[in-house]
Amino acid sequence: MKDPVYKLVELTGTSPNSIEDAVNNAVKRANKTIKNLSWFQVIETRGNLLKGKVHHWQVTLKVGFLVES
Amino acid sequence: MKDPVYKLVELTGTSPNSIEDAVNNAVKRANKTIKNLSWFQVIETRGNLLKGKVHHWQVTLKVGFLVES
Amino acid sequence: MKDPVYKLVELTGTSPNSIEDAVNNAVKRANKTIKNLSWFQVIETRGNLLKGKVHHWQVTLKVGFLVES
Amino acid sequence: MKDPVYKLVELTGTSPNSIEDAVNNAVKRANKTIKNLSWFQVIETRGNLLKGKVHHWQVTLKVGFLVES
Amino acid sequence: MKDPVYKLVELTGTSPNSIEDAVNNAVKRANKTIKNLSWFQVIETRGNLLKGKVHHWQVTLKVGFLVES
Amino acid sequence: MKDPVYKLVELTGTSPNSIEDAVNNAVKRANKTIKNLSWFQVIETRGNLLKGKVHHWQVTLKVGFLVES
Amino acid sequence: MKDPVYKLVELTGTSPNSIEDAVNNAVKRANKTIKNLSWFQVIETRGNLLKGKVHHWQVTLKVGFLVES
Amino acid sequence: MKDPVYKLVELTGTSPNSIEDAVNNAVKRANKTIKNLSWFQVIETRGNLLKGKVHHWQVTLKVGFLVES
Amino acid sequence: MKDPVYKLVELTGTSPNSIEDAVNNAVKRANKTIKNLSWFQVIETRGNLLKGKVHHWQVTLKVGFLVES
Amino acid sequence: MKDPVYKLVELTGTSPNSIEDAVNNAVKRANKTIKNLSWFQVIETRGNLLKGKVHHWQVTLKVGFLVES
Amino acid sequence: MKDPVYKLVELTGTSPNSIEDAVNNAVKRANKTIKNLSWFQVIETRGNLLKGKVHHWQVTLKVGFLVES
Amino acid sequence: MKDPVYKLVELTGTSPNSIEDAVNNAVKRANKTIKNLSWFQVIETRGNLLKGKVHHWQVTLKVGFLVES
Repeated sequence: MKDPVYKLVELTGTSPNSIEDAVNNAVKRANKTIKNLSWFQVIETRGNLLKGKVHHWQVTLKVGFLVES
Repeated sequence: MKDPVYKLVELTGTSPNSIEDAVNNAVKRANKTIKNLSWFQVIETRGNLLKGKVHHWQVTLKVGFLVES
Repeated sequence: MKDPVYKLVELTGTSPNSIEDAVNNAVKRANKTIKNLSWFQVIETRGNLLKGKVHHWQVTLKVGFLVES
Repeated sequence: MKDPVYKLVELTGTSPNSIEDAVNNAVKRANKTIKNLSWFQVIETRGNLLKGKVHHWQVTLKVGFLVES
Repeated sequence: MKDPVYKLVELTGTSPNSIEDAVNNAVKRANKTIKNLSWFQVIETRGNLLKGKVHHWQVTLKVGFLVES
Repeated sequence: MKDPVYKLVELTGTSPNSIEDAVNNAVKRANKTIKNLSWFQVIETRGNLLKGKVHHWQVTLKVGFLVES
Repeated sequence: MKDPVYKLVELTGTSPNSIEDAVNNAVKRANKTIKNLSWFQVIETRGNLLKGKVHHWQVTLKVGFLVES
Repeated sequence: MKDPVYKLVELTGTSPNSIEDAVNNAVKRANKTIKNLSWFQVIETRGNLLKGKVHHWQVTLKVGFLVES
Repeated sequence: MKDPVYKLVELTGTSPNSIEDAVNNAVKRANKTIKNLSWFQVIETRGNLLKGKVHHWQVTLKVGFLVES
Repeated sequence: MKDPVYKLVELTGTSPNSIEDAVNNAVKRANKTIKNLSWFQVIETRGNLLKGKVHHWQVTLKVGFLVES
Repeated sequence: MKDPVYKLVELTGTSPNSIEDAVNNAVKRANKTIKNLSWFQVIETRGNLLKGKVHHWQVTLKVGFLVES
Repeated sequence: MKDPVYKLVELTGTSPNSIEDAVNNAVKRANKTIKNLSWFQVIETRGNLLKGKVHHWQVTLKVGFLVES
């Protein structure tokens, strides 16, 4: 079975700064335990508010990676 | 990297009694192997029918939990 | 043609008590005229309000049943 | 202009017990300040988890009511 | 009735600079008249174009806040 | 903060005649209490039936308007 | 079982003139064989084109009616 | 009323071989009791697994047919 | 390759009068440069508001046409 | 500006045989006039029925290709 | 807790030949490390194109399996 | 026919830096060949990953422009 198979995991990254940082934080964390990270898709962008400001951006993403055979 | 990252897993809990029990069963099972369960979202509510009655409620949910760094 | 074929019908069950009862009422009614009821999926949960309270839960579901060959 | 016009507001009700109670709590609260509540639709069912159990059901619903002319 | 109830309002924030700024502008404006802002969800990201460039980012979000009892 | 912020409200207009009239009725009603109405989007088109005919078109729309700073 | 149960059927009405006429044609046809028609929801609006003009509006709707017990 | 009206029914066809066969099986079964079958749309593609292989493809489709006047 | 292939283009037609006119305007414009227009689907119905009235209906549609081989 | 930009076009391919053939027919036709075809996504699977059988599979897809700078 | 609980994992299977083969490849791979595979649902069908032809079908599916208690 | 008609094209812009840059790159490229660019909507945000980092943000957007009569 030489056709590649990928697995997708769903993560929520957070950051006080930006959507991009929230995604990067989730990807960095995934990279600690998963090899061959290949792509991501943003599923949802939310956040919590504190004192009338965005406190944390919360970005849910799916991350796809190659499953070794 | 101190901003929390969460992982989401998708489960289908079942119960002969109610939607709430089906969710609780899935959460209880998740709690056996996952620490720091944080939230859930109901994705789909279905069930199988036997002899013209609901036999099992089948509720699919996503469960989010904190990934330790 | 021995592979089973199923038909789906869409019903709205109602109940003053709960979502589960609304589903059960729809399934009971379907069972009067349809044999081989097999599964259901909840499509929508609504209700009407009277005097500031839920008067009737209205749950729309699809019910699948085996079509005899 | 005698044709009725309705307004919809979006609320999240919560309850430690059930989806139905979470909806009822939101409706009761709406009824304190809004007259002529007419119908609701469930938009999303989520909840938070504490010590491996559902701590609060969080049900987001739209509530429609007649706007007086 | 001690279980918290939240209300959600829908806003479109705008900014010539970024999605984050458009969200922040909407949240700042909401904070002028609403207490207890709690969370937001991005619903849609659009913008208008002028002379072949993004003139304004237009981000529609739902903002949730605690309704006092 | 000079970047405009808009608020969206959700209404259901009704009319025995047409979808356009149902929208117009909702917009006319909104215009009585809201200044700076700017745009609308149709969310859902439904209606009730009486004696085998459409009795009322019921069109749910979101109406956006400029929030003054 | 005194709580009403409704059934929904899906129809596509057509008309050379308007969306409203296409809906009316579907409802009129349903009324020939179904009693107690109660409500409808528009699901999709399409049409075919002939000689650069709309030839037929094709409107798919769900029609709900009370199931007698 | 000469403008055609169509009805849609929802079916789940199954096959051990392919998506196309599952659709064909549903259409063949529909053709036994319904005249004037006109078009179909695939709604969902699922299947059950047995011993680590696809046992049955289960394809849910809507089938449209002309209602005679 | 004798099996027909169609292309779909997305247009927003506008009209001060009705949804139908907005669709017709888009189709008329498409017909100036595209041959073999075959069908359309309504994707979104919006509009802008001026002085508390609908100023322009804005209907986004996909138009399909046969690609010549 | 060295970051690649892609354009997506929407096509409906048809085939009497299979979903795969319908996709292939659309891709082949696109390849006659577009260079650098890169990926596709299936949007919808439908078909017309004739004499109780699938006459043509109609698969709508988006095809992405690199825009040359 | 005797009511079964299922877990769902999301995979993308690929194949140069067909949608069915892409699904089978993902299921085969899952079967190497997961017991009790029970059902799957197709989530998305895409592919990459090379020299004007489909190079790999890429089918994303959810696979459900029984979680042992 | 003086009512404006708009066309929408779908593009995927890419950038190693941010979502905003990916959108800007797509808009700049469109501006080379299309006059009267008017608005855009973000459809999807994805990206590819290389060495555990976001390599390219890939943002798919629809761009609307006035069609000259």
